[in-house]
Amino acid sequence: MHPVHAWLEQNIERFENDLEEFLRIPSVSTDPERAADVAHCAEWVAGRLRTIGMENVVVHATPGHPIVTAEYLKAGPDAPTVLFYGHYDVQPVDPLHLWTSPPFEPVRRDGKIFARGATDDKGQVFLHICALEAMLAVHGSLPVNVKLLIEGEEEIGSPNLTPFVRERATDLACDAVLVSDTAMFAPGKPSLVYGLRGLAYMQIDVQGPNRDLHSGSYGGAVANPLNALASIISKLKSDDGRILIDGFYDGVLELTSDERSGLARLGERDETLKADVGVDTLVGEEGWTTTERLGARPTLDVNGMIGGFTGEGAKTVLPARASAKVSMRLVPNQSTEDIARKFTEYVKKVTPPGVTVTVRDLHGADPVLVPRDTPAMKAATQALQDVFGEDVRFTREGGSIPVVLLFETVLHAPTVLMGFGLHDENAHSPDEHFDLKNFVAGMKATALFYENVAHSS
Amino acid sequence: MHPVHAWLEQNIERFENDLEEFLRIPSVSTDPERAADVAHCAEWVAGRLRTIGMENVVVHATPGHPIVTAEYLKAGPDAPTVLFYGHYDVQPVDPLHLWTSPPFEPVRRDGKIFARGATDDKGQVFLHICALEAMLAVHGSLPVNVKLLIEGEEEIGSPNLTPFVRERATDLACDAVLVSDTAMFAPGKPSLVYGLRGLAYMQIDVQGPNRDLHSGSYGGAVANPLNALASIISKLKSDDGRILIDGFYDGVLELTSDERSGLARLGERDETLKADVGVDTLVGEEGWTTTERLGARPTLDVNGMIGGFTGEGAKTVLPARASAKVSMRLVPNQSTEDIARKFTEYVKKVTPPGVTVTVRDLHGADPVLVPRDTPAMKAATQALQDVFGEDVRFTREGGSIPVVLLFETVLHAPTVLMGFGLHDENAHSPDEHFDLKNFVAGMKATALFYENVAHSS
Repeated sequence: MHPVHAWLEQNIERFENDLEEFLRIPSVSTDPERAADVAHCAEWVAGRLRTIGMENVVVHATPGHPIVTAEYLKAGPDAPTVLFYGHYDVQPVDPLHLWTSPPFEPVRRDGKIFARGATDDKGQVFLHICALEAMLAVHGSLPVNVKLLIEGEEEIGSPNLTPFVRERATDLACDAVLVSDTAMFAPGKPSLVYGLRGLAYMQIDVQGPNRDLHSGSYGGAVANPLNALASIISKLKSDDGRILIDGFYDGVLELTSDERSGLARLGERDETLKADVGVDTLVGEEGWTTTERLGARPTLDVNGMIGGFTGEGAKTVLPARASAKVSMRLVPNQSTEDIARKFTEYVKKVTPPGVTVTVRDLHGADPVLVPRDTPAMKAATQALQDVFGEDVRFTREGGSIPVVLLFETVLHAPTVLMGFGLHDENAHSPDEHFDLKNFVAGMKATALFYENVAHSS
Repeated sequence: MHPVHAWLEQNIERFENDLEEFLRIPSVSTDPERAADVAHCAEWVAGRLRTIGMENVVVHATPGHPIVTAEYLKAGPDAPTVLFYGHYDVQPVDPLHLWTSPPFEPVRRDGKIFARGATDDKGQVFLHICALEAMLAVHGSLPVNVKLLIEGEEEIGSPNLTPFVRERATDLACDAVLVSDTAMFAPGKPSLVYGLRGLAYMQIDVQGPNRDLHSGSYGGAVANPLNALASIISKLKSDDGRILIDGFYDGVLELTSDERSGLARLGERDETLKADVGVDTLVGEEGWTTTERLGARPTLDVNGMIGGFTGEGAKTVLPARASAKVSMRLVPNQSTEDIARKFTEYVKKVTPPGVTVTVRDLHGADPVLVPRDTPAMKAATQALQDVFGEDVRFTREGGSIPVVLLFETVLHAPTVLMGFGLHDENAHSPDEHFDLKNFVAGMKATALFYENVAHSS
């Protein structure tokens, strides 16, 4: 066995205990009452990095939660440099009553560790730190230069990371970025994500009469904002999943036949998905597989809607206003700005008479495709293959990771999205967990990745 | 001048002061903390009825708020008997900050009295009591037998009135029922309402996945309950106001050409209505006037809708469920039971794949047409004409007054809906008020009505 892998196996019990310690810190970034816990968590990460022998470990204060950086530059100026990015903050825990065990009291059951942050992203951050520790312990050195950038605001949209990265572009300069914040295609099936969808998140506000009216006295002659909003929304997407906004598909870079067959070779996970989310039928755009619909095709969802009387029982109100939040997932080469404009124009066009509509652009992120032929990507592919004994799947994921675009534009470095989570590990939900097999496999793959990067240079 | 009218004119200042006293009692039936005020209000009404000389004045306890009854039977068994129905409870006052003066501190401005309950229904109840007082004061008697039934739960759906009326059908036996809880067609234009729309009030609950999902990870393959609900609602009614539910119009008794020309002669109030509710355009079913759309045609409104994330900002949730409350206003001879069944079947038919829908029937009321050729109706017509010096308009109103159907089925007596409110008097809204011209005109018309009923027998 590879000596680093052997060392990792010998230390795994200790690493699992230490991960529990990390998971016990309730670093909920969105909760102001947890600010001290978030700060404590940053110090915990920094302490660990110092212990294993990383240099220049700094906890940077920001207007929000701290950013932790560290580096190892002893591989020398001719060796490649890898920047590792992860986050130590976690999602809120609500609804608390749906947790089998308390979210910040980690428990190991059935080969999994249960706690908030287990898979997103503390478990994945920590396995990297363990891999670095193992290489330093066994060899006394790392084969490449390594920089770490671990933030505490990922779950609230990384408001302070963008200025931080822009200001310190030189300090963070690297040949490749490594991110472990994605899921594997399926258990035992390692994957590298090469595409992430973008986002255009809009709000529609419909104003009808100047006050709530009695629906008996006015219904039938005064336009109802809720009926109008339902009508608008029904015209955004056909029941068979085709988005009807004028020019919506104009920018879409069609999948190559190579990509389609690559995605097809992944095999479908329709049955697993249906069982996981508890539905009988999957839906979506005609002519595309579920894998394509989820990762490689744009889509549109209503994220929230409200208007009128929503309590128990019956109140015969014709409401003055109604609102909906609607977001679109975008694919290369759609742009969030262009789609937001087309959305706004289309909504105004299909608004029925008698109401006034306002459309606001709340949030956006452009879609990303990372190159699949970089040395770092090849190094990751080989590492995963060796550890899992399985061909690596190249996948496209449905969500956005906006920092990937940040690293591309500011650091001009390609990102490798090598994640060890699983889709059903309840990231953002009660009973979040992380498979301990993938915890150790992740460490081993990471160690091999660094060696492969060194050899590829 | 008619001696009763002269007496009323002489006493009007006192009546306005006494109405203020009545309006000062915060008899909000929906608020449990106001229960003692509601009870006090019932006693106030009963005290007044005793003072003016009514007999058998009783405040009946119920499981909810009290019902006040009184009678005058000295006209003898051969004279006709009129049952007057009204309510002394009022709507809540929220939003309080939109009131120009406090809702329970009555103020007279510009010939109107402002307070919660001014027009709905305390002002209208009190003008009847004043008319009775005037007749008793001037003549020492009433020309017909009169019974009064004044409840305190109208604004919460009269839960205790139905059993009360059924149990005391003999005590309440009458030749005609008089209700003053409607509006005149326009200022100076007296009207008798002969049609009231019915109601079928439904709730649609749509269940999608078993939990809220991340819209990035699942959007495009898992059906979204909010999109599905918008699609269902958009299929209930076309943008031009035609209801698309199978068989919805089957029971509709079409307006006769007489009725249509009668309604047309009323003149349209489109401009007033638009200015009142603050919209540029009225909408509705093709081929019908606004008056017909509001009173004589069935319609459908979404009364409330909720699902997903409705706070500030952006959250990329694909929600587990969504709900809407949808009510239909019905016209003779549609039945609420038949329409609820057709609605349920149709919603299930148009529900898109991937979600499960549940439809519940929350509340219903059948539509009503009261006969226009009864002696009581003729008596009311003549009385209004004499007081206002204007032809009486026969109108159909959009809302339901379920007690009308109760009196028809249990007491077998026709109802006369002789109301003195105006459409813009903010019943159920801030700054509710009642025109003092109509307060006195209503007293005069009521006195003449009783005389006309006596002569018609």
